Amino acid sequence: MELNHYNDPSLIGGCSVPVRVNRKTKPEASEVNVGGIKIGPHGVVVIAGPCAVESRDQLHETAFSVKRSGGLILRGGAFKPRSSPYNFQGLGIEGIKLLKEISIETGLPFVTEVMDTRQVEFVAEHADMLQIGSRNMQNFVLLKEVGMQKKPVLLKRGMMATIEEFLLAAEYILNQGNEQVVLCERGIRTFETTTRNTLDLSAVPMLKHLSHLPVIVDPSHGTGHRWMVPTMAKAAIAAGADGLIMEVHYNPEEALCDGHQSINPEEFSALMTDLDKIAQAVGTRLVKPEPSAK
Amino acid sequence: MELNHYNDPSLIGGCSVPVRVNRKTKPEASEVNVGGIKIGPHGVVVIAGPCAVESRDQLHETAFSVKRSGGLILRGGAFKPRSSPYNFQGLGIEGIKLLKEISIETGLPFVTEVMDTRQVEFVAEHADMLQIGSRNMQNFVLLKEVGMQKKPVLLKRGMMATIEEFLLAAEYILNQGNEQVVLCERGIRTFETTTRNTLDLSAVPMLKHLSHLPVIVDPSHGTGHRWMVPTMAKAAIAAGADGLIMEVHYNPEEALCDGHQSINPEEFSALMTDLDKIAQAVGTRLVKPEPSAK
Amino acid sequence: MELNHYNDPSLIGGCSVPVRVNRKTKPEASEVNVGGIKIGPHGVVVIAGPCAVESRDQLHETAFSVKRSGGLILRGGAFKPRSSPYNFQGLGIEGIKLLKEISIETGLPFVTEVMDTRQVEFVAEHADMLQIGSRNMQNFVLLKEVGMQKKPVLLKRGMMATIEEFLLAAEYILNQGNEQVVLCERGIRTFETTTRNTLDLSAVPMLKHLSHLPVIVDPSHGTGHRWMVPTMAKAAIAAGADGLIMEVHYNPEEALCDGHQSINPEEFSALMTDLDKIAQAVGTRLVKPEPSAK
Amino acid sequence: MELNHYNDPSLIGGCSVPVRVNRKTKPEASEVNVGGIKIGPHGVVVIAGPCAVESRDQLHETAFSVKRSGGLILRGGAFKPRSSPYNFQGLGIEGIKLLKEISIETGLPFVTEVMDTRQVEFVAEHADMLQIGSRNMQNFVLLKEVGMQKKPVLLKRGMMATIEEFLLAAEYILNQGNEQVVLCERGIRTFETTTRNTLDLSAVPMLKHLSHLPVIVDPSHGTGHRWMVPTMAKAAIAAGADGLIMEVHYNPEEALCDGHQSINPEEFSALMTDLDKIAQAVGTRLVKPEPSAK
Repeated sequence: MELNHYNDPSLIGGCSVPVRVNRKTKPEASEVNVGGIKIGPHGVVVIAGPCAVESRDQLHETAFSVKRSGGLILRGGAFKPRSSPYNFQGLGIEGIKLLKEISIETGLPFVTEVMDTRQVEFVAEHADMLQIGSRNMQNFVLLKEVGMQKKPVLLKRGMMATIEEFLLAAEYILNQGNEQVVLCERGIRTFETTTRNTLDLSAVPMLKHLSHLPVIVDPSHGTGHRWMVPTMAKAAIAAGADGLIMEVHYNPEEALCDGHQSINPEEFSALMTDLDKIAQAVGTRLVKPEPSAK
Repeated sequence: MELNHYNDPSLIGGCSVPVRVNRKTKPEASEVNVGGIKIGPHGVVVIAGPCAVESRDQLHETAFSVKRSGGLILRGGAFKPRSSPYNFQGLGIEGIKLLKEISIETGLPFVTEVMDTRQVEFVAEHADMLQIGSRNMQNFVLLKEVGMQKKPVLLKRGMMATIEEFLLAAEYILNQGNEQVVLCERGIRTFETTTRNTLDLSAVPMLKHLSHLPVIVDPSHGTGHRWMVPTMAKAAIAAGADGLIMEVHYNPEEALCDGHQSINPEEFSALMTDLDKIAQAVGTRLVKPEPSAK
Repeated sequence: MELNHYNDPSLIGGCSVPVRVNRKTKPEASEVNVGGIKIGPHGVVVIAGPCAVESRDQLHETAFSVKRSGGLILRGGAFKPRSSPYNFQGLGIEGIKLLKEISIETGLPFVTEVMDTRQVEFVAEHADMLQIGSRNMQNFVLLKEVGMQKKPVLLKRGMMATIEEFLLAAEYILNQGNEQVVLCERGIRTFETTTRNTLDLSAVPMLKHLSHLPVIVDPSHGTGHRWMVPTMAKAAIAAGADGLIMEVHYNPEEALCDGHQSINPEEFSALMTDLDKIAQAVGTRLVKPEPSAK
Repeated sequence: MELNHYNDPSLIGGCSVPVRVNRKTKPEASEVNVGGIKIGPHGVVVIAGPCAVESRDQLHETAFSVKRSGGLILRGGAFKPRSSPYNFQGLGIEGIKLLKEISIETGLPFVTEVMDTRQVEFVAEHADMLQIGSRNMQNFVLLKEVGMQKKPVLLKRGMMATIEEFLLAAEYILNQGNEQVVLCERGIRTFETTTRNTLDLSAVPMLKHLSHLPVIVDPSHGTGHRWMVPTMAKAAIAAGADGLIMEVHYNPEEALCDGHQSINPEEFSALMTDLDKIAQAVGTRLVKPEPSAK
C-alpha cells in the first residue's frame, strides 16, 4: 500500500491520497467527455433536470427548458434510492428508456444513477454517464462494476465520507481501468438542521489540490432549499467548481421527489445568466452549447 | 406513507418509525433464530470470530477457542468492504466454504457479510445469517435482496445513520417478507478522533423502545481499540443489549484486517466470565451453549 | 510546549495529553474530596438534585429524598446558562444561599455552577464544589479563576470538545495550583436527533487511560430522556465511571428547567438499588453514606 | 417565550428565531457602524490583521499593508483563547494599547476579542468593536456584558452551534439594548479533518433570511489553510456575505499564532483586486476607503 498512496502531511488531519487519482501522479487537470461535452479545466458545465423521471411529458418539458437556458447535460433518476421503502422508487427501466428518447430529441447527453451491479451493463448501454449516489459511495462492488464500463462516472461524495475516503472510492473506479471520473460535492451530514446537509464548498479547492479529477457541486441536495440553490450555485463557481448539477422541475410543487429543493425553468434561466458573470469574475466561463454537441 | 409510519413526537428531534419494525405494531420483543441459537429477550448471545477469514488454520483455531469460551455464533468476513482498493479484499467464495466447514466442525452457526446482490443467494445457501455492513446500510437493492431470503439478517447501523434511517433500512427487509432481522449498533462517526467511532450505547434503549427487533452491539468497530473492547462490551450489556459481536483473532498482531481492535482467545475467555456477572446484575443472563445447539 | 505534553501516538487520531493531568506523570488514580465525600478509585459516588433551585420547598424535599436513597452530594443550579435570554435564568445569589441552608440541614455537601469570574469567589465561599458547565469548558479565564480557589471543581465536557481539548481545559485548572478536578462526560453533539446529545461512554475508559483524574457521567443531559436515565446510568458504571450526576426533581412535570430529563424520587430510589448490583458486578461498590459525612 | 420567538416551520429541522434579531420584526437589513465604517447592505467590508498582536513593529507593518490594500477595519488579538495553557496567551492590556496607537496612526478602526466580563469596560473604551470568540458564543454573562456597552459587537458562531443557537446568542446582546451586532460564520466542527473546520457558507443566506443582522465570513479559521483563504473568501462574497475577516501577517512563518492560516500582505493585496470583481458579479461592490473614514 505504501507504493500506492502519497501521504500529504501538510493537511491538518493528514490525508493519504491514492496513486491514480493523485495530482502528483498527473499534475494537469483531467477532462471527462460526456457524450461530447467536456467537463474539466476549460469552463463550467451545468447539468440539470428532474430528481426523478416521472413521465414523458414531465421529462420532455423540463429537458427542453434546461436546453433553452444553456444546460449541457440532462440529469434524471430512474432507479431512486429512498430512505423509506414506501416512497416512490422510480420508474426503473422504463425511466431509462424515456431518458434515452428525450436525450435524442434534445441532443443533450444524460446522466442517471445506477444502484445495482446487475443493472450496470444495461444502463451503460443507454446513458452517457453513470452516477454513483451518495449512499453508494462505499458500495465497492458497484464501484468496481462501473470501473469496468466504457462510460464516464459521476461519483457523489457520501454524506459521511471524508475527503480521503472519497478519493479512495474514486480510486476503485480508476483501478479497474476507467479514468473518466467526475467528483461531486453534495453536502455532508453535520449537527446543523436548518439545511438538509452542510454543503462543504472547501472540498472543491481541497479535491482539486489533491487530485487531477474534475469537481462539480450539487447545490440542490447540498442545501435542501429551493430558494438557496441559486446563491450556493454561485458560491460553488467562485470556489472553483468545474460544474454544477441541479434539480430543475417544471412544477416543483407537484414533484414526486425532492420538490422542495428543485427550481423551476424560469429560476433556472435567470440563474444561468448570473452564473456566467461569476465564472468570468474568477477567470473562467460558462461552457455554451455548440451546434454539434452530440 | 402516512399509513405506514407512526410518528413519535415525544422524541426530541422527532422520529418517524415505519410500521413493520414498530413496537406499537408488535409490542412483544422479537426473537431471531440463527441456526438454532435464539437472539432476543431471553438472554445475551455472544457472536465472535475474526474480522476476515485468512486461512483454514486461523479460522479453525479461532473458532474452537470462541466455542470453548462460550461464544454461540461464529463471525468471519469472506467479502470485505475496504476503504482502499489496495487493502486485502477477503478470500471471497473460498472464505465462505471455509466458514461452512469450520461451522460444521464446531457446531457453531455462522454469520458473514454480503456485499453484492449477485452473491446473496449463494451466501444464503451456506451461511446461517447474512450481515449487511455499515457502508451498505442504505444499499437498498441489497436490503431488498436479503429481504427475499429465508435466512436471518444482521443489519449494522451506518456510521452516519440516524435511528430513523436505521429503522427504515430494517423496514426494507421486513417489507420483503423477512422478519428475522437483528439490529447492530457499531459506532457512529463524530468529531472525536481518539476512538475509531463513537459507540452510541443510548441507541440500544432507544431502538428497543421504538422497535420490537433484537439489538446487539459491536464494541470492536465501535472503539477501534483492543484494550477498550471488554469495558465497552460490559457497558453494552448494562445498556440492555441482547447480544454482542466481537472480533477475536488467535494472533491479533498479525491479522490481515483490524488486528488493533481484535482481542485474543485468552482475553475473550476472561471477558465471557465478566459478562455473565453484568448480565445477571441487570436481570438477564449470558445464553450458554446447549448440547443440541445446531 | 513540547516539555509540557506527552503524545500518545497509539491513539487513532493522535492525542497530546498535557503534563499535569497525564497518567504518565502520576500513575495512581487521584481522589477528590468534596466536603468529606471522596470521589475516586474506591467506589462509585452519586450526585443528585434538581437542574435549577426553584424554591426552598422544592430544594428541601428533593434534597432529603436524595439523601434517603443514598445520594452523597447535592447538585442544584443557581446561575443557569440558558440558550435563550427569555428562559428562566436561575435564582442567582438567593439560590446559592438556599443550597447552603439545605446542605447544612441534610448534611450533604453541594456542587453548583459558576458562570462569571466575578461570582467565583462568592460561590467558592459557600459551595463544596464548583461546576464548570459544558458551554464554558473553554472559557479560559473562568478555568483560571476556579484554578485559584481552594474548592474542588467539576469540569463538564464541552458538547463539542475532543478528549484532547477536555484534558487541556482541566490542565488550565491544575496549572493554577488546584488539583481537585473531576471530569464529567455529559454527551456530545452529533447528527443524531432522537437523543438530546450522544452520551460518549467510551470517553470514560479513554479519560481514565490518559489521565489520573476521576471521571463521572451525567446521564440526564447525556440523553435528554427521563426514561433513559436509569439504563444509561447503569451502563456508565459498567464502563468504569467513578460516579454519576443526575437530575432529580420532586415533580418533574412542573420543573422550570429540564423536567423532561429529571427522574422523580421514587425512580431515583429504585435506581440506587440497581446501581449497587452493577457496581459489584464490575468489582467496585456504591459508596454508602457514613454518619460523619460532612 | 411564545411571544418572543417566531418559529419558521418551513426550515427542515425547524428553527425558532427570537424576536429582536428576527427579520420578520425588522424586514430591512441592519447596518452596523464601526468607527465610521458601515457594515451592512451597501457593500462588502474587509477586516484584516494579525491573529495576535505580537509587537509594535509587527502590528504597525501589518496594519499599514492592510490599509494600503483597501482593508477598512483592523483586527488583532490581545487576549487570546488558546486550547492549551502553555500556548502564547496574548499581550493583554499592552496589546489593547498597541492596537489603539496603530489605529490612530492608520486611521483604521479596530476590533479585538474580549474574554472576561471584568475586561469588557476597559476594552470598550479603546476598541471600535468588541469580538466574542467562537468558544465564548454561549458565555451568556459575557454576552450580557457586551450588550450593555455602546460599542458594536462581532459575534462569531460557535464551532458546534446551530443557526438557532447562534441567533439566540445574538438575541442576548440585543436584549440588553445593544443592536449593533455583526454575525460571523467561521467554520463548524464536523468529521472532516483535512480542513481545520468546515466553512458553512450556506449559513450566510440562511442567517440573512432569518435575521436582519449583517453577516460576515472568516475564511482563515474556516479553513485553517493559507492557500485556501483566497478561494473561500471569493466564495463567501458570492454567497452574499456583507464582509470578511481575515488573518494577515507580515511574516506568517514566524507568527506566534495561526501562521499556517495567515496570508501575507502581497497575497492580501492580490486578493482584494479579485474580491471586487466577485462583488460586482453578484451586484454589490467592495467598500473602498474614504478620506474621512474615521
